[in-house]
Amino acid sequence: MSASEPIPILGGTGALGAGLARRWAAAGAAIVLGSRSAERAEEAAAKIRGAVPGADVTGLDNAAAARAAEIVFLTVPFRAQSENLNNLREALRPGQILVDCTVPLAAAVSGKATRSLGVWQGSAAQQAQEMVPEGVTVVAALHTIGAPTLSDADHQLDEDVLVCGDKKADKARVARLIELIPGLRAVNAGSLEMARIVEQLTPMLISVNSRYKAHAGIKLTGLPDADHWA
Amino acid sequence: MSASEPIPILGGTGALGAGLARRWAAAGAAIVLGSRSAERAEEAAAKIRGAVPGADVTGLDNAAAARAAEIVFLTVPFRAQSENLNNLREALRPGQILVDCTVPLAAAVSGKATRSLGVWQGSAAQQAQEMVPEGVTVVAALHTIGAPTLSDADHQLDEDVLVCGDKKADKARVARLIELIPGLRAVNAGSLEMARIVEQLTPMLISVNSRYKAHAGIKLTGLPDADHWA
Repeated sequence: MSASEPIPILGGTGALGAGLARRWAAAGAAIVLGSRSAERAEEAAAKIRGAVPGADVTGLDNAAAARAAEIVFLTVPFRAQSENLNNLREALRPGQILVDCTVPLAAAVSGKATRSLGVWQGSAAQQAQEMVPEGVTVVAALHTIGAPTLSDADHQLDEDVLVCGDKKADKARVARLIELIPGLRAVNAGSLEMARIVEQLTPMLISVNSRYKAHAGIKLTGLPDADHWA
Repeated sequence: MSASEPIPILGGTGALGAGLARRWAAAGAAIVLGSRSAERAEEAAAKIRGAVPGADVTGLDNAAAARAAEIVFLTVPFRAQSENLNNLREALRPGQILVDCTVPLAAAVSGKATRSLGVWQGSAAQQAQEMVPEGVTVVAALHTIGAPTLSDADHQLDEDVLVCGDKKADKARVARLIELIPGLRAVNAGSLEMARIVEQLTPMLISVNSRYKAHAGIKLTGLPDADHWA
């Protein structure tokens, strides 16, 4: 990524996407919010510009947003993941990295948010890898970061983001973007298939949150302090 | 549990069981190690008595160990879980709590330790609940605590233990035992079915450990400081 490339967030009008956009914008990154309708995306962008002084945030339709940079974040509910990926078939091009943040909560079919659905491919991220055009690489990340804590600018983040993907170099590029947000550490959680496990953390955290009336995150203890991505 | 009840650890000659025994013994708890053979259990107990000054650790066969207290820990590999539970059918009695620490690693069938097996009941803990005698309650815990860090007395623990079970009162009793070990915090992770998720953390941590040459544990951020078990 060139230093000047923006960060496209598809589904950026949702809670997770908007929360990430706020944090990245506050950290000085340029953001392109994508949504089904360019108008709704631009409305959401204006909201963030109003909330974050100096924010460089614009809104486009998803396909246009997906063309804005090499690394593209997809932050839609599981219910909408397939449809979004179908719609992106013409927009995504070889060499791009799609960062899938989807969690297959049972809530997608009116079940509980503390339970998950089995995805045939093993995980939502692996489903995404099957659906993106040839040459596009999927990296899975950001499942355990709560939208409420992202959106609360006064909340000091102090969490790990477990990053799954088949190539370390791709994960490292995504990690650099994640770590632009103060308080987030990106941890290499293994190959893309490991998303089967990492995606499951979200329903567990949702369950913990309801019990403790909290916004819990995950941290791994015992890791060396050195920069693992160098 | 009366204050004088010991802590039985079935499969206590294995790495996790022996590590827990050392920590609990160092904290002043009486331990009964269980093994298939009383002789091997007593050998393992003698080793801990040699390593931990003042340790109150004895060794018995699993069935005798299971009768030594109301709360019994099962720390065997998944490969041996069913056989152990079959053998315990006559020993366990209504009112007891079996704390299942089993992780269904694919290593049980010569697969990778970074992958897991699907268990028909949903998790090893739910399989245990199906196999114990009527009136025995299964609580799942301690999956993410590494045997190497437990056995290294110089290693300061600072990790959470995610505890799953269907009754809070049962989980609270188990939590009290877990929190006898300095540096371990027991977190209520929900009903027993949530073990489907918690058991999966171990292969993920094994994967992280091999990559980072570390002994990683789990910690949840954002939880209130108050004692959740009171």
